Amino acid sequence: MNEFELLSRLLHDLPRDPSTLVGPGDDCAVIDLGAGDKSFLLKTDAVVEGIHFTPDTDPRLVGRKALARCLSDIAAMAGTPTHALITLGLPPEPDLARTESLYSGIKELAAAQNVTIAGGETTTSPHHTFVSVSLLGWCPKDQCILRSGAQPGDAIFVTGTLGGSLQSLHHLHFEPRLTEARWLAKHFPLSAMIDISDGLAGDAPHLLQASHCGAELLAKAIPVSRAAKLQHPGKPEAALRAALTDGEDFELLFTLPSIHAVPLADAWREQFPEIRLSCIGRVLQDTQLRMRTRHGVIPLKLNGYQHFTKP
Amino acid sequence: MNEFELLSRLLHDLPRDPSTLVGPGDDCAVIDLGAGDKSFLLKTDAVVEGIHFTPDTDPRLVGRKALARCLSDIAAMAGTPTHALITLGLPPEPDLARTESLYSGIKELAAAQNVTIAGGETTTSPHHTFVSVSLLGWCPKDQCILRSGAQPGDAIFVTGTLGGSLQSLHHLHFEPRLTEARWLAKHFPLSAMIDISDGLAGDAPHLLQASHCGAELLAKAIPVSRAAKLQHPGKPEAALRAALTDGEDFELLFTLPSIHAVPLADAWREQFPEIRLSCIGRVLQDTQLRMRTRHGVIPLKLNGYQHFTKP
Repeated sequence: MNEFELLSRLLHDLPRDPSTLVGPGDDCAVIDLGAGDKSFLLKTDAVVEGIHFTPDTDPRLVGRKALARCLSDIAAMAGTPTHALITLGLPPEPDLARTESLYSGIKELAAAQNVTIAGGETTTSPHHTFVSVSLLGWCPKDQCILRSGAQPGDAIFVTGTLGGSLQSLHHLHFEPRLTEARWLAKHFPLSAMIDISDGLAGDAPHLLQASHCGAELLAKAIPVSRAAKLQHPGKPEAALRAALTDGEDFELLFTLPSIHAVPLADAWREQFPEIRLSCIGRVLQDTQLRMRTRHGVIPLKLNGYQHFTKP
Repeated sequence: MNEFELLSRLLHDLPRDPSTLVGPGDDCAVIDLGAGDKSFLLKTDAVVEGIHFTPDTDPRLVGRKALARCLSDIAAMAGTPTHALITLGLPPEPDLARTESLYSGIKELAAAQNVTIAGGETTTSPHHTFVSVSLLGWCPKDQCILRSGAQPGDAIFVTGTLGGSLQSLHHLHFEPRLTEARWLAKHFPLSAMIDISDGLAGDAPHLLQASHCGAELLAKAIPVSRAAKLQHPGKPEAALRAALTDGEDFELLFTLPSIHAVPLADAWREQFPEIRLSCIGRVLQDTQLRMRTRHGVIPLKLNGYQHFTKP
């Protein structure tokens, strides 16, 4: 049983209340708090020593990553983060300098994104440090982009490049795509969006399943990162596999009616000239995920990064 | 350096925004989201295996406790909890039955308190399980009770009985005082409130420091629990010390102008006949905490439970 199967088993019989517009299963929960034309977003996530970082990782970057991951989920709803709560799990005799450095990584990114740290807790964690972050954010009621709205015929886009994030340390330095996501939602009728944390091959199925659709991806259109290419010199298929499965890319994967594909590509190039945007395929009516390669169309069964099933 | 000194060092230079009415340092953060006469409350907390529970603890009660601790903080603001987010840190090969049982403990208490579980995450935690809970709640704008409003002359009250929580397993079974806190705030002009998680001697100073006051407690008025007395047969001073320092009581400590003390005691007895309410002292102008005993007035320097300083 992988992480997603476990979660769906734990969460399947939850009661819902009318104020919870979107519950577990999307990038954030979406809540109606009776505040005019705003919906509110809630997200929690944790990074754990030995899983998301090592004892050697610069603690500033650990703190930064803990917050950035959560921000990326707010970005995936085209939202604006406002308030963060931080719980630090620290060893019984915490290293003060390291702890302050970790916190400064959180504070710097929070300040850069206009996020207020509204609460902080510490607790003892005997064997490994962890950082749990909760975020409150908002989006205009009519501009919240869920995973579930993709339609057959929609074009599929991805921001940035994919693969090799752990080796290139992109996973510690990435910029959550908040500005880009809000610009997209404001100017184009996006039908669905998700952030890629478990690899394109891991997260595309989440978007497609939520939308009850399938998709065909174009192998040659997948934006393989320089890091993934350098890691697999002269082996483009291995580099492509890295781009599909490495995870921790924190790029946006989104869909929109294909009639908007070319205007979007043009406007994006104008707006964000330094960030690549790739049209990587289209949504289909059936529920298969497949990829068109030089050797024909193959079913895509590669799994992205999943807790519990990979070391 | 203890947990509170560490936090104040980490959090001292946080930027604040106008929507954050109360930031770190109270039981919850208080946020203005522009929703009429409501303020919103945010709280996060975590329980960790080996610290807050053992590998032998009934997992249902672990889940229950993780949520109940956070609910107790919402109670301390006289608030109403509405939405919870849960992050489970689980070993690489989690025991499915135990995990489901842990989650059922969360779900049962959430249902009993009308709290919606709006989001759930899991992550791998190599050496020990942890449960991180975040709560969103609200209170009427004019009825949110902070730690900082106590005035010299105010009477000091505590609900329930104190001490022996770990031995009696009260820490796994306690009922967060949500109903009682809202009733108090609705009917009496409380000046300050906190929940007692680190022992009366640990948490009374938090309330008093926030209010820039001191207090004199009456030793014979402290409601020592039956568990603490049974643990120290024939040793009332040891039992009193347990009531002051054991921690994990999750009772309410609050202050109000002393003119309301007797009407409150009468109304409480009518409303909550099965829950003890004790007037244990009064707020003073200086910033000392002392206790009147048979042997005279002694400074109270006992520390409550603190992470990092006690095993």
